[in-house]
Amino acid sequence: MEKGFASDNNAGIHPDILKAIEKANKGHVIGYGDDSYTQKAIQLFKNEFGKSTEVFFVFNGTGANVVGLSSATQSYNSVICAGTAHIQEDECGAPEKFTGCKLIPLPTENGKITPDEISKHLAGFDFEHHSQPKIISISQATELGTVYQPDEIKAIARLAHEHEMYLHLDGARLANAAVSLHLPFKSFTKDCGVDILSFGGTKNGMMMGEAVLFFHPELAKNTKYIRKQSMQLYSKMRFAGAQFLAYFENSLWKELATHANKMAKLLEREIRKIPEIRITQQVDANGVFAIVPKRLIAPLQEKYFFYVWDEKQMEVRWMTSFDTTEEEVYDFADTIKQILR
Amino acid sequence: MEKGFASDNNAGIHPDILKAIEKANKGHVIGYGDDSYTQKAIQLFKNEFGKSTEVFFVFNGTGANVVGLSSATQSYNSVICAGTAHIQEDECGAPEKFTGCKLIPLPTENGKITPDEISKHLAGFDFEHHSQPKIISISQATELGTVYQPDEIKAIARLAHEHEMYLHLDGARLANAAVSLHLPFKSFTKDCGVDILSFGGTKNGMMMGEAVLFFHPELAKNTKYIRKQSMQLYSKMRFAGAQFLAYFENSLWKELATHANKMAKLLEREIRKIPEIRITQQVDANGVFAIVPKRLIAPLQEKYFFYVWDEKQMEVRWMTSFDTTEEEVYDFADTIKQILR
Amino acid sequence: MEKGFASDNNAGIHPDILKAIEKANKGHVIGYGDDSYTQKAIQLFKNEFGKSTEVFFVFNGTGANVVGLSSATQSYNSVICAGTAHIQEDECGAPEKFTGCKLIPLPTENGKITPDEISKHLAGFDFEHHSQPKIISISQATELGTVYQPDEIKAIARLAHEHEMYLHLDGARLANAAVSLHLPFKSFTKDCGVDILSFGGTKNGMMMGEAVLFFHPELAKNTKYIRKQSMQLYSKMRFAGAQFLAYFENSLWKELATHANKMAKLLEREIRKIPEIRITQQVDANGVFAIVPKRLIAPLQEKYFFYVWDEKQMEVRWMTSFDTTEEEVYDFADTIKQILR
Amino acid sequence: MEKGFASDNNAGIHPDILKAIEKANKGHVIGYGDDSYTQKAIQLFKNEFGKSTEVFFVFNGTGANVVGLSSATQSYNSVICAGTAHIQEDECGAPEKFTGCKLIPLPTENGKITPDEISKHLAGFDFEHHSQPKIISISQATELGTVYQPDEIKAIARLAHEHEMYLHLDGARLANAAVSLHLPFKSFTKDCGVDILSFGGTKNGMMMGEAVLFFHPELAKNTKYIRKQSMQLYSKMRFAGAQFLAYFENSLWKELATHANKMAKLLEREIRKIPEIRITQQVDANGVFAIVPKRLIAPLQEKYFFYVWDEKQMEVRWMTSFDTTEEEVYDFADTIKQILR
Repeated sequence: MEKGFASDNNAGIHPDILKAIEKANKGHVIGYGDDSYTQKAIQLFKNEFGKSTEVFFVFNGTGANVVGLSSATQSYNSVICAGTAHIQEDECGAPEKFTGCKLIPLPTENGKITPDEISKHLAGFDFEHHSQPKIISISQATELGTVYQPDEIKAIARLAHEHEMYLHLDGARLANAAVSLHLPFKSFTKDCGVDILSFGGTKNGMMMGEAVLFFHPELAKNTKYIRKQSMQLYSKMRFAGAQFLAYFENSLWKELATHANKMAKLLEREIRKIPEIRITQQVDANGVFAIVPKRLIAPLQEKYFFYVWDEKQMEVRWMTSFDTTEEEVYDFADTIKQILR
Repeated sequence: MEKGFASDNNAGIHPDILKAIEKANKGHVIGYGDDSYTQKAIQLFKNEFGKSTEVFFVFNGTGANVVGLSSATQSYNSVICAGTAHIQEDECGAPEKFTGCKLIPLPTENGKITPDEISKHLAGFDFEHHSQPKIISISQATELGTVYQPDEIKAIARLAHEHEMYLHLDGARLANAAVSLHLPFKSFTKDCGVDILSFGGTKNGMMMGEAVLFFHPELAKNTKYIRKQSMQLYSKMRFAGAQFLAYFENSLWKELATHANKMAKLLEREIRKIPEIRITQQVDANGVFAIVPKRLIAPLQEKYFFYVWDEKQMEVRWMTSFDTTEEEVYDFADTIKQILR
Repeated sequence: MEKGFASDNNAGIHPDILKAIEKANKGHVIGYGDDSYTQKAIQLFKNEFGKSTEVFFVFNGTGANVVGLSSATQSYNSVICAGTAHIQEDECGAPEKFTGCKLIPLPTENGKITPDEISKHLAGFDFEHHSQPKIISISQATELGTVYQPDEIKAIARLAHEHEMYLHLDGARLANAAVSLHLPFKSFTKDCGVDILSFGGTKNGMMMGEAVLFFHPELAKNTKYIRKQSMQLYSKMRFAGAQFLAYFENSLWKELATHANKMAKLLEREIRKIPEIRITQQVDANGVFAIVPKRLIAPLQEKYFFYVWDEKQMEVRWMTSFDTTEEEVYDFADTIKQILR
Repeated sequence: MEKGFASDNNAGIHPDILKAIEKANKGHVIGYGDDSYTQKAIQLFKNEFGKSTEVFFVFNGTGANVVGLSSATQSYNSVICAGTAHIQEDECGAPEKFTGCKLIPLPTENGKITPDEISKHLAGFDFEHHSQPKIISISQATELGTVYQPDEIKAIARLAHEHEMYLHLDGARLANAAVSLHLPFKSFTKDCGVDILSFGGTKNGMMMGEAVLFFHPELAKNTKYIRKQSMQLYSKMRFAGAQFLAYFENSLWKELATHANKMAKLLEREIRKIPEIRITQQVDANGVFAIVPKRLIAPLQEKYFFYVWDEKQMEVRWMTSFDTTEEEVYDFADTIKQILR
């Protein structure tokens, strides 16, 4: 199979990441995180986000979200999120199963949620019949390829903290958001009031690079047990740590995400030339969402596999990744034109 | 405290129910349901709903809902319900905690959900990333005092069954609905395609009378373990059974619900005479919902306690019960008029 | 069916308890515990156990145990108990399901556990691979009819507290233990270091009387949500409260438990006269355990139903209750003699 | 840090496994398992275990065990295992948390359980108060380095199946057992009646190689949802599949496990020459357990880190791995002798 626009998960491993794994493959080290690779990688996170940050590596994004949410909730709490959130739509109920919490999905047009919509559900505090709201969870970049501005995040954080709640950020595509905003990670997460962060690298060239970050140490005081009990503790942890070393070295993450975002912009430009297709979301990161003629889908998927996002209105999702080439983008657009001709 | 319009739960026990408890209080009987009172009560349910009905008594409405939902789901399933549903708003997350399932709340103006809204969430079948829809849950009467017509229920059941899902009905106020529809229980539940029924009696004069009914025996094949594990198995079960014997005898349930509904209608009539108050929901059962002037609430609550349903728009809920008297309704309306004067 | 020796759960309701329910059945009161009966009953518990005691009424003993354990644990904790404990053997896994914790059953000959056996499992603290021990749970009276001496409880409490663990006591038959020890409740529970107490009344003449007590307020700070989420919150709570008012009035509990224990002693005396039967446990409370000839069981059960406790060695359990009469005991012993003749 | 005898998890990745990852790192492939590497790897498992085997790759051994147990249980079931089992001692309660089941640990001297001990807990079937036994779980090789003979497994499987239960085998060190028994995998698992198998490769030279196998397709019919909900679904699954391709190619697994076992035998031989040390378990696989003088531990750990298995009796665990060298073994034994001199 050729490359395509199905998912940034369909890309492989960036060569520097793989080299880092090889380099770490020497001799014996203690398992489960007590090795120098993991410890150095944690230090890099602390450099990036501040000394008091607590860092836990996990296997995948769902694991990161669940370990993060579990650490800050009891089962009688609720978690407010977008109706399009990964935790709501794409984790097969892992958050409910593991935390016991209720998820409250909010309507959204662009993947973002607003203080107004959130406020409607900030009720029933202290009332034992009602799941107690404890977390607001947002995704950055969102599942629809849009990016919150720092002020938008601050407003949500303020609302959360006024109600003694926490703000969780699902950063499966955090690098793409950082590049989109031209900002360092910390300035639009911790500095905006985010309390818990799922930091994802897998969609940006890592083999398996996911971490949960807590910006208040007390939130993380039981996380080591929660990570183990949620089956997210990796025995040969050094190979997770080593990947992050390479990811941060020379800002590899930025180079990769910059490229992916640039390819999405190029794709957007080329697609906008095609009158039969309507782009439905702002292209802030590495995804392009568009409503297309139904007759396009099957023939296009033969050459380039991708997902139909919403069957009812024939909306498709096209993702770019660190290894997407300009040639592919042009060929993809040409192929579409040929089919539609 | 006097009587009032706060909740049908605030009423006591109908004297006939209490007498039945006394009558059953003779000698020893085997615990946990293997006694003649319980067995006779189960028989009465079978008379009402059909021989193949499986019947389990539980402690409360939340227990009935959770045992019912658990019996028909695995943790990777989802349950679609109204945003106003008791399972969504008033059970502190017991359904998520115990079943592990995701609840999907739908927007509703009147407490009912429609095939159109439901259909939007009948997606992602067979897709492992997505909680698999398995149950549609409706309340009858709804939490907003409205009642589904049989055809409305049939349409939802058809939709459920087309997708190999089940229809659960939360009947905490089933008697009020039956009286409102002038129909026997079976004709608007089982006969309309309901698969699992929470049958409530506590809000209609019982001390503690809740049952879960399954209309397909295979749905109930593990329910005895689920009931025990969910802490809903009563050791001195005969006193649950005995209450239901009295509840069905001479159709006591109908007499009580008829009275409660009649009092709600009377209350509606009297309230409609007060121009400052706007009744917001159709009065189908034993609840009146109304938007009132803010200045009314505190002084009225001094004499008659009740709940503010929606603080944002000053919507209140007034419930009648089997022991509400005409005098109370008139006095309540008069009190309102005096305060508003 | 006649009375028998199957279970103290098979007895009915003491008339004074039933009268208290009737007396409380007047007018409307606020539901879910905010009524004067419940509040007075809570006050009686505080009189008995000390002002700082937090009290929650629940539906049954399993509910009491689970709500108590949940309030003091996280899912990565473990609970150490006897292999014969109700939470281990007779709750269909409700504790594991609801708390997520691991239960660690200890071998026991007489239903009691000892600091020596417990200590073997006080390991792995701070080690993320290992469920963290958090609770030691004992039953008083035990499921085998034996009773811990205060010093035995103190020693276990000391061990628990040395390891920052809590001591939970399942007091489904607490009244029988109190009478056996000739001590007030507090002196062999709170005063011995018990932190969480399941206080049972159902097996001693109540219709449905179970409470969870916490002797440190901070342990109970989330219990109201836990009780609701575990489906243990009773809407018409006044009828739980009213029962406890009668239970404590004139020390009704003591009168009833004294009688039940006395009947067990009488039964023991009579059974010891029968050489074919060997009593296996010390008769401290209201249960007699005995190994009997196999041929005795079926014919005896025809007249008096009871449970075979251990099929492998033909050990049976005979329970007395508040309404057991001397005549029944003598007739029971005579029946046995006749069958064995 | 040098190599040592702490854990087979402390070893790195065998070069052939790493090469396979590199080789698979080409272009885009569909995520989550629908790629040719994963599909080929599944085919290799089917070649090994039979066509009807269902295979699911997961992240770690705890994940494998939990996904396997969940697929065959409901929360009211129980799982019988050795008190030393990984699921009992080393998974921080993940099985209870995720399955809701009760684990019943059996006493064991050598890590194995016997039909006699198991039978004591095959009781309470159909009794709703009792967790229903559904799975017997054994480890092969055991956590104490011993190996079940095929006949021992058959006897346990027979017992399980007679009670409509399943036999689960935790094969975190299955390769070491296969080599020890001189048997192909299938002959001492599926052919002996094992129903569910956790197949581990991580401890035998893989980077991250764990699979759950089901030998009856109906057991696996919901496993894809269970795997996702338990956070065990890897997005870039091809890198799991590719590792197994290398693991099976030229029987790499056998070469590696043969070496590790041989090193354990060599270590045993050398240690037996030291009179102050008593080897406590039969050395069947790649672990040596021994009681040592207390004064040995600290100085030895300075050079070679390892775990004290049982602090109370100064029992230590020494594990060999695929990359242990003869020189290390000799040096380790020499170091011990020098310290003890």
